[in-house]
Amino acid sequence: MNYIELLKTTTDRYNSIVCLGLDPVLEDIPLDKGTPGERIAAFYEGILDRIVKEKVYPASVKPNYAFYAQYGFNGLQALHRIIGLYRAAGFPVILDVKRGDIGKTAEAYSREAFEFFGADAVTLSPYMGYDSISPFMKNFPDRGYYILNKTSNKSSGDIQDIDTRGEPVFLHVSRKILDWYHPGIGAVVGATYPEQLEKISAIFGASGKEVPLLIPGVGSQGGSVAEVMKVLASGDWRLHRINSSSAINYAYKKNPGMDYASAAVKALKELNDEIGACL
Amino acid sequence: MNYIELLKTTTDRYNSIVCLGLDPVLEDIPLDKGTPGERIAAFYEGILDRIVKEKVYPASVKPNYAFYAQYGFNGLQALHRIIGLYRAAGFPVILDVKRGDIGKTAEAYSREAFEFFGADAVTLSPYMGYDSISPFMKNFPDRGYYILNKTSNKSSGDIQDIDTRGEPVFLHVSRKILDWYHPGIGAVVGATYPEQLEKISAIFGASGKEVPLLIPGVGSQGGSVAEVMKVLASGDWRLHRINSSSAINYAYKKNPGMDYASAAVKALKELNDEIGACL
Repeated sequence: MNYIELLKTTTDRYNSIVCLGLDPVLEDIPLDKGTPGERIAAFYEGILDRIVKEKVYPASVKPNYAFYAQYGFNGLQALHRIIGLYRAAGFPVILDVKRGDIGKTAEAYSREAFEFFGADAVTLSPYMGYDSISPFMKNFPDRGYYILNKTSNKSSGDIQDIDTRGEPVFLHVSRKILDWYHPGIGAVVGATYPEQLEKISAIFGASGKEVPLLIPGVGSQGGSVAEVMKVLASGDWRLHRINSSSAINYAYKKNPGMDYASAAVKALKELNDEIGACL
Repeated sequence: MNYIELLKTTTDRYNSIVCLGLDPVLEDIPLDKGTPGERIAAFYEGILDRIVKEKVYPASVKPNYAFYAQYGFNGLQALHRIIGLYRAAGFPVILDVKRGDIGKTAEAYSREAFEFFGADAVTLSPYMGYDSISPFMKNFPDRGYYILNKTSNKSSGDIQDIDTRGEPVFLHVSRKILDWYHPGIGAVVGATYPEQLEKISAIFGASGKEVPLLIPGVGSQGGSVAEVMKVLASGDWRLHRINSSSAINYAYKKNPGMDYASAAVKALKELNDEIGACL
């Protein structure tokens, strides 16, 4: 099964397009036994148990490498373990690494993500061009490769919005994604920029090619689910993923008296429902 | 001592501006005992011993993360060990990670590079803008931060050369580097594009700010030392680093009968001499 099929299959199976970000912030994890890595692994095992028990599912999960790597080997061991657990439970894993290097180096990064960690998809930076993307697609042709396109952060415009004779840089990147097309290549587009999302979606839609979007920025960053869904619903929305991390991970903070895993699953269900109501 | 001072001090101490890339390719390492990580660590320990013994020095070393990460924990343990050994021997370490993520994630990456691995400098991607650079400078104000500017690879123009009303994207990135200025911020510019190097160097020179360049692409990639030095010699060349990896690491292949460490040191000396002859 290639990545496009995996996305559609899991959307149907889980009745969800939510990507659950697994971004551990140690001081927000209400478990205090063991090393940082052990606490992180236990935290996400708790959420996974609750997901399975309550039958409230995400469509994918997305650990961000940085949050684990800051704790050294101990953190990366937790990452390895969590990826294994969520994949074994049937959830595709997008490893958010934003790699961007060339040739042999890109090949090495592709082995790190797909062989060592066993991820289904990665995030990649386009700045170094096709040399930094193609080794991932060539060596692991059935995975997902989300290219940073228009990111959700405040200063994303510093480079991405530079005007190039009437068109910003990020739309050139969208066209490059089409030039570089291989099934499974996708784009990261922030929910915080709905107009830009619409433009990018229109370019991909007009191409006739299936380009899965990974959309961060709803929840704490302020992006609107309704605005995102208005864009996605014009095409095959099952291809896409809306990411939420801290609003689900640490939902216990807004649910006094509720255990962290139940609060996380409650927040996941609310986001699934909010998206479902837009369809 | 801040990073600018460290660069000048080490240039003077070692009479070199060579950055020795530590990029392990397992099949090229002529040692066959132990795990991949053990073979890699032994290989670079052998070169370090020879460097110290023959008193032929690089000015910095630059391990590329990808080559280690592909072997999982075992490879990253080798990376951690090698960084510790070269730093203890007095060589500044540029950790080539090309990170590019925002806010808390960038903070986590800065801790990975500077706390966990103990590097002196990192490489960073500019695509996500200032949010992805500033946490490194804010949390670790005395280190080096090399921003990808015009990279040495064939497809670097895909994004970096997009024309923006008469000027390519990479020159905007050069100006952003000046906007974002903090002592230690630098730029990665490939030796394979000497005209672009000259333009970037002119922008930095005109600003009056000290912007260290990290210049890959000589040796196997085909960049010319003489052309690079013509540009560098117009300013304070002690700030800059010319990187060479495989041509030094695997010089034994071109020196039949010579042990790998002696061949590496011989190639390092030749590059130091070639650079020195241009001054």
